[in-house]
Amino acid sequence: MDAASLEAAIVDKGNEIRELKANKQDVATQVAELKKLKTDFKIVAGYEFGSAPGATPPPAPKEKQLTKKELRILEKQKAAEAATAAKTDSADPSKFGDAPLVQSQELPSKKFVDIADINKSLDGQSFWVRGYLQTCRAKPKIAFLMVRQAAFTIQGVLSESADVTKAMIKYASEITRESVIDLYVTVAIAAQEITSTTQNDVELVVSKIFAISKALPVLPLQVEDAARSDTLINAEGSDYVEVGLDTRLDNRVLDLRTPANQAIMRIQSGVSQLFREFLYSKGFVEIHTPKLLGGASEGGANCFSFGYFGESAVLAQSPQLHKQMACACAGLEKVFEIGPVFRAENSLTARHLCEFTGLDLEMAIKEHYSECLDIFSELFIYVFDNLNSRFKRELDIINEQHPFEPLKYKNPTLVLKFDEAVAMLNEAGIDQDLLEDLSTPNEKALGALVKEKYDTDFYFLDKFPLAVRPFYTMPDPKDERWSNSYDFMIRGQEILSGAQRVHDPSLLVKRMESLGVPEADLQTYVDAFKFGALPHAGGGVGLERVVMLFLGLGNIRKASMFPRDPKRLRP
Amino acid sequence: MDAASLEAAIVDKGNEIRELKANKQDVATQVAELKKLKTDFKIVAGYEFGSAPGATPPPAPKEKQLTKKELRILEKQKAAEAATAAKTDSADPSKFGDAPLVQSQELPSKKFVDIADINKSLDGQSFWVRGYLQTCRAKPKIAFLMVRQAAFTIQGVLSESADVTKAMIKYASEITRESVIDLYVTVAIAAQEITSTTQNDVELVVSKIFAISKALPVLPLQVEDAARSDTLINAEGSDYVEVGLDTRLDNRVLDLRTPANQAIMRIQSGVSQLFREFLYSKGFVEIHTPKLLGGASEGGANCFSFGYFGESAVLAQSPQLHKQMACACAGLEKVFEIGPVFRAENSLTARHLCEFTGLDLEMAIKEHYSECLDIFSELFIYVFDNLNSRFKRELDIINEQHPFEPLKYKNPTLVLKFDEAVAMLNEAGIDQDLLEDLSTPNEKALGALVKEKYDTDFYFLDKFPLAVRPFYTMPDPKDERWSNSYDFMIRGQEILSGAQRVHDPSLLVKRMESLGVPEADLQTYVDAFKFGALPHAGGGVGLERVVMLFLGLGNIRKASMFPRDPKRLRP
Repeated sequence: MDAASLEAAIVDKGNEIRELKANKQDVATQVAELKKLKTDFKIVAGYEFGSAPGATPPPAPKEKQLTKKELRILEKQKAAEAATAAKTDSADPSKFGDAPLVQSQELPSKKFVDIADINKSLDGQSFWVRGYLQTCRAKPKIAFLMVRQAAFTIQGVLSESADVTKAMIKYASEITRESVIDLYVTVAIAAQEITSTTQNDVELVVSKIFAISKALPVLPLQVEDAARSDTLINAEGSDYVEVGLDTRLDNRVLDLRTPANQAIMRIQSGVSQLFREFLYSKGFVEIHTPKLLGGASEGGANCFSFGYFGESAVLAQSPQLHKQMACACAGLEKVFEIGPVFRAENSLTARHLCEFTGLDLEMAIKEHYSECLDIFSELFIYVFDNLNSRFKRELDIINEQHPFEPLKYKNPTLVLKFDEAVAMLNEAGIDQDLLEDLSTPNEKALGALVKEKYDTDFYFLDKFPLAVRPFYTMPDPKDERWSNSYDFMIRGQEILSGAQRVHDPSLLVKRMESLGVPEADLQTYVDAFKFGALPHAGGGVGLERVVMLFLGLGNIRKASMFPRDPKRLRP
Repeated sequence: MDAASLEAAIVDKGNEIRELKANKQDVATQVAELKKLKTDFKIVAGYEFGSAPGATPPPAPKEKQLTKKELRILEKQKAAEAATAAKTDSADPSKFGDAPLVQSQELPSKKFVDIADINKSLDGQSFWVRGYLQTCRAKPKIAFLMVRQAAFTIQGVLSESADVTKAMIKYASEITRESVIDLYVTVAIAAQEITSTTQNDVELVVSKIFAISKALPVLPLQVEDAARSDTLINAEGSDYVEVGLDTRLDNRVLDLRTPANQAIMRIQSGVSQLFREFLYSKGFVEIHTPKLLGGASEGGANCFSFGYFGESAVLAQSPQLHKQMACACAGLEKVFEIGPVFRAENSLTARHLCEFTGLDLEMAIKEHYSECLDIFSELFIYVFDNLNSRFKRELDIINEQHPFEPLKYKNPTLVLKFDEAVAMLNEAGIDQDLLEDLSTPNEKALGALVKEKYDTDFYFLDKFPLAVRPFYTMPDPKDERWSNSYDFMIRGQEILSGAQRVHDPSLLVKRMESLGVPEADLQTYVDAFKFGALPHAGGGVGLERVVMLFLGLGNIRKASMFPRDPKRLRP
């Protein structure tokens, strides 16, 4: 165990002692209660529940969610519970209970504060908080709630007093985990740092508690488990349950509730935000190319196809052709697009998705595609710099659950020629043909060699062999074995592929012929270059790849909100 | 004719006089040349050419673009021309000619200036300019070029001198329209204002001219025609050709070259830019929901469907379900998305597309959906205000070709209740049932009544009848005939539809049952609300609708770069 975990354990023990002092009810009672909850749930929902410590959690019950009949049973049970609560002599609907459905009955009148904004400066202030109830540890006279809103958690305390009755504490203790609750609270400085929450120097003294939306009594995964740090899970002798990726993705809305996932989604948003900010400042125009295409997309392979009012159509496998037409043929000159990209590739790897978000740019060049590479270098440095400065809070939260090395990059970006890269691999005793594409293992090996030699995780690999690039790639002017094309690499994996493009229609047709791409399928594209076209270059980035590799997540599905792969079309 | 057109005509006459003075070659020669060009072209490309003044231009030859064989003929012709040029004693490849293919031969060394940035302050300076050659009016001793880059045009002059030979002027005069050219120029103050170009106080004295990418000799439309102002076309006695919408869209890359279309694409980009800017400032997170869905999208109708690795899938008809899951069930709270939306609706109207760009937002609310309407009101006022200030240059350019009334809007936005709207229509003698949806004519009539009464083109129509809204709409808390839902209207047409959503799974299932939406198709969606869900509201805007209505374009296709409708899947 590391220092932080030890500290957390000590604070937990401290809380436990406070609990024990407040109440003598022993652990056996808690276990009995838990067992009863399991039995109840089996009856109500037909779930199997078996997350014994150390055991793998059962796969989420896919097509076995609550039926209408079961919902009716649940509702009846709710009604019975409400009747019981009503009988309790100390019930007080002005202080606790299930709130009526929020249905815009009255105009807003309550003051709410976000958990992210609660800190020492609000000491003594009272207001409302709304969040998910992550955990509740309760005794008859005291209850500790962990409440979560977005990526932030805070501790709430209900302690028996004139304001807080035993019935209210009992009510709180019976609210199911992950229910949405409203608390009326007063901020208090914590006696000691609370390491289990993000807001660690304050706690909330709760005087009212209402359930806004109740969760099922048993969840397919516990957010607490899903949020546990890799360090704790991998520690020697740890018997923590690790929530598997499939369980997470089957129940993605729960999985996304962890602070790290909240932060990952914000980093994903941040990458696009910074990408655009930079490009707007350089005079780029945002475009939206059609995703529904007649004919073929880039020559046909790996496309989803469908019927379109009696015609056959495909989903764009990239904005390539239309962004070129917008930039070079329609004269918009500097364009970018952020939008979905569809690949019907039947490959289940850690770095491929069937739908991902493309960050694409295309720009007119005057003389040399280095004009475009210069923009790309500035662009990525802008994105990385500003992620590190403006999204530090999110990066820290992710780091806490999934520790990762900060990305190393140079300004300007290192540009390595393909033939130099081959020489580096060969020198290191690795087989790599001069005119063949890099395999994934060789890409990774090269990444390690580059890191060792140049101390950077990010670089441009320039001047690929022509034979391994698509038909629209401009050949090298001096040696036709090579091309004016490049990949960008982060931590040994490709995030961008790009090139100077062919803007001359005769050369374009020749290139298509030599690669066997039928011109008829791309007629409107080829024709567009016959009306005068600007020389141009560009590239396409996979947003989820950038996020995965910047954060060292290890699997691209973790960087996608609702990932799609050959076996996953839901949720 | 209005004053501006008269002025333009006077300047044109002035230029004509300059031409006549410089050279005595008469108009008959020009006509003969034109006739020869037509004949040549018929031979070369098999095109029919018949844009006699007043006649409708022929439809663009669709499947009849240049074949490989024809391209080869063209190339031979080019070679023959080059040989002829080489024989001319005054040929000078350092000053004019067809440039070699821009293929990144050497690193950039030339200084280029954008036409948009050329004005009086650069008087006397020399540099390179790259643009499309829009027109060239040439005599043996002088040529006037109109060169265009993005939304900006400028006049270039080649006048016989020590630097500029007759051969060079002849070369310039033979470059086909819309070819990409490089000019080495010196800026000169114009003797009189040039009203036919956007840069009207300067002209470019050309000393070198090179063709970078040559256009076909005959184009399916002339950018000059496509760019002509509505005022000139509609003037009494005008015999200008109007380029039809189908011709424009069939040859969209040429059509997009007009200054007004360049500006429209920049306004489209601007709307998204401002939408995001505002939402980032309010703490929203940008999300990307999947477009490939298992089951149904919002219940099934109007979806494109396709096979997905042995399963059946549909294209999302909106991000509705997943943005709700992200906001309310995954706890991201404030989310927005800008992305494509697919509708398999077989309706050919001026305001529907089969693929458009959705601007979607969804946010958690505490007590009342007015919290969301307040954000929307601020958001749209921010967008409109900043379009008017930061995109004034673009708006002026559009206004010059397509005059439109500036949008009138109030701060805060006018909110009209649906029942009030029905009363207004009824009072005006228009049939409208209290609990039925508005027809398109009634929407427009209402827009006119609201404009008259409240002097605004933009308003929110609130509290629609429940029966006309989708299953996820929250019913009114007091009267089940109504719902917590709204549309936003610009100039009498809907741009946004939204509502408070149902976050309670029991109510959701009831609503689905009552509308006959099969729960099984939306199981993962319904289940997501069983784990505790935040009350929330939102809406979806059609980007192209906003652009069309803000600019008064009259047809949504003009606001889409490459529009898709039931009859249009290309280019």
